[in-house]
Amino acid sequence: MTLIVKKFGGTSVGTVEKIEAVADKLVAAKKQGEDIVVVVSAMSGETNRLIDLANQIDPELPARREYDVLVSTGEQVTISLLSMALIRRGQDARSYTGSQVRILTDDVHSKARILNIDDSRIREDLNQGRIVVVAGFQGVDAGGNITTLGRGGSDTTAVALAAALKADECQIFTDVDGVYTTDPRVEPRARRLEKITFEEMLELASLGSKVLEIRSVEFAGKYKVPLRVLSTFEDGPGTLITLDEENKMEQPVIAGIAFNKDEAKVTIKGVPDRPGVAWHILGPIGEANIEVDMIVQNISEDGSTDFTFTVHRNDYSRALKILEQICDEVSAKQVVGDDYIAKVSLVGVGMRSHAGVASLMFKALAEEGINIQLISTSEIKISVLVDEKYLELAVRTLHSAFELDEKAIKQETLEGFAKK
Amino acid sequence: MTLIVKKFGGTSVGTVEKIEAVADKLVAAKKQGEDIVVVVSAMSGETNRLIDLANQIDPELPARREYDVLVSTGEQVTISLLSMALIRRGQDARSYTGSQVRILTDDVHSKARILNIDDSRIREDLNQGRIVVVAGFQGVDAGGNITTLGRGGSDTTAVALAAALKADECQIFTDVDGVYTTDPRVEPRARRLEKITFEEMLELASLGSKVLEIRSVEFAGKYKVPLRVLSTFEDGPGTLITLDEENKMEQPVIAGIAFNKDEAKVTIKGVPDRPGVAWHILGPIGEANIEVDMIVQNISEDGSTDFTFTVHRNDYSRALKILEQICDEVSAKQVVGDDYIAKVSLVGVGMRSHAGVASLMFKALAEEGINIQLISTSEIKISVLVDEKYLELAVRTLHSAFELDEKAIKQETLEGFAKK
Repeated sequence: MTLIVKKFGGTSVGTVEKIEAVADKLVAAKKQGEDIVVVVSAMSGETNRLIDLANQIDPELPARREYDVLVSTGEQVTISLLSMALIRRGQDARSYTGSQVRILTDDVHSKARILNIDDSRIREDLNQGRIVVVAGFQGVDAGGNITTLGRGGSDTTAVALAAALKADECQIFTDVDGVYTTDPRVEPRARRLEKITFEEMLELASLGSKVLEIRSVEFAGKYKVPLRVLSTFEDGPGTLITLDEENKMEQPVIAGIAFNKDEAKVTIKGVPDRPGVAWHILGPIGEANIEVDMIVQNISEDGSTDFTFTVHRNDYSRALKILEQICDEVSAKQVVGDDYIAKVSLVGVGMRSHAGVASLMFKALAEEGINIQLISTSEIKISVLVDEKYLELAVRTLHSAFELDEKAIKQETLEGFAKK
Repeated sequence: MTLIVKKFGGTSVGTVEKIEAVADKLVAAKKQGEDIVVVVSAMSGETNRLIDLANQIDPELPARREYDVLVSTGEQVTISLLSMALIRRGQDARSYTGSQVRILTDDVHSKARILNIDDSRIREDLNQGRIVVVAGFQGVDAGGNITTLGRGGSDTTAVALAAALKADECQIFTDVDGVYTTDPRVEPRARRLEKITFEEMLELASLGSKVLEIRSVEFAGKYKVPLRVLSTFEDGPGTLITLDEENKMEQPVIAGIAFNKDEAKVTIKGVPDRPGVAWHILGPIGEANIEVDMIVQNISEDGSTDFTFTVHRNDYSRALKILEQICDEVSAKQVVGDDYIAKVSLVGVGMRSHAGVASLMFKALAEEGINIQLISTSEIKISVLVDEKYLELAVRTLHSAFELDEKAIKQETLEGFAKK
């Protein structure tokens, strides 16, 4: 038998009608011979309703332990309704809360991490021919207290269950039919990827293609659980996320293009280049709970340096203010910034060994007159900052330059380009 | 320290504001030196909302195990919100679901009975100065499945906890300020009772004074847990329900007057008086799931008998139809009935040894021209059937005859009356 863990998010089970549709889908899959464990989230809107109740009681900081007791009821409602719907269809089923499974976590309420999963009850149910319905997003600590994994944590539950059960595949059902080469709202010719590696997916997810919760992808990669993203509402193969084990010769160089509009750039100019200066600048930013994304430092010839980093646009004015205070302390010359910028990133495991990717990227942008303000690279990603007004143009230009809408560009092409 | 278990029903915790008010009340009681365990129901309306969801999925018979998983979320929401409200007030608190306590029940879903309660976590919390907040109405079976005790079961949870913890008192907070001598809407001079025995309360509850769920009173009597009914919204001593241990000389003979309008009377006349005839008549009634309340049989002189019983008014026409079929089989003469009758009952442990109660009752009703259609007595109760149009008059007449609005009638008075 094929054992599949399937996860349905809040919009997929948002109404009684949608729950019925999911039940139909599951019964059909069961008839195809699958052994099935389903993980569900709270019905859409329910978690917010519960959080709102908590905030009415305590607008500042509702007690964390009790907060988890409260919000975990959201998934508990869904598992019972879905199980009822299955049983009504003549398909035996059984629901489990996180405590019941049991999904053991640490005791960090609202942000708990899964430590262990007891699969004995689930295996017994599967052997009896049941569909097992598990509440996502929740667990229990060693003291028997209810914990939650934080928002979006149902994906993580699904992957962790798939790992514990050594499932053949973990399928994440969502409102899109797969992972795309880029956001189709920006580039209508964006193409659904049949396959992508965990590493690529991590970079795409963190850069804004929010199809999957990032922790679940890390988890899937770590435990080598094949992950598939597919649509709740349409049939189709979706996108399979797997290890990068195949012949690299057949791999496309670039998997996709991510972008992010909510960026702002801050630069402190003419900083004397001496040890500890980066810490001196970024320390107070970190203390103010401002998250820093890209960091670039160039050494200029006169022994001073320009230090640039990007932050979320909401943190822009706070970051500027902090830097202005630091400016004198570190004997820097000037602080400047720009909050009308966007980040565009090429992601692909194939670029590891290919300098040609950067060249083609910069050439393509230059030909459209798009100025690159900042460049940052990692093993499988090249990111550039551009004026926000060029964002869509940049994405479409790169999508076309790397032939993502046709068939993915192969490394031979790239090698040819790199030689030019 | 005094250990009190307090139970607040759905209307007492029906909104965030009411939950806040309950929290204030608890903090005040804690400051008075009470150790407190609180049992709460689902916010009013919540259980019905959940049941409605279940019925949308399965209008016939939603799977019972899953139904319990669903409806138990109602109390889980309340325990977390109330605990948050307490913690926000600087009062440490901790919530427990039925599974967490753990309240072990049998596995009869939706109608489970409590088998055992583990009080170790609660005692530890109380020792730490915490208020412990427990979800009413729910438990867990030996297999770890969530069970519920059926509607109104939160009272039972409270009493069972009080028994397990050997609490000094179990306080049931409700929207009335105690148990009355009769329904104040019928007799405005009805008086709140300071004390009443478990037996009396059972008779009053089953007869329609629905202040407490009957199973919880049985439970409290069995485990000798002093039970107090009092108002959530006003301060006051309420009514204490205890064992009948005090000097009977000081006990009032009559505790209160219960009544019930939803009765109908069916009589099968001229039944040959031979063994098995009662079974022959009532067997088919029971098979039709019709509950029978009072049963009276008189032997007439010609060797035949008139057999009368009462049923709920909704079952009247079905009962009549069944009897008409039986009439020939048992060679009875005629079937007659009346669905415009009411039952009035005097309840009091003091009447055990006093024939005078019945005499005074019948005299008082006769003086007002109220015809008694049927009489049935038990150790601590005398019930009569009267034409429904006389109901209010009968209640007020008896209330006054037994001096319930002043101070309760003492047995000396009654003895005097019996001698007349």
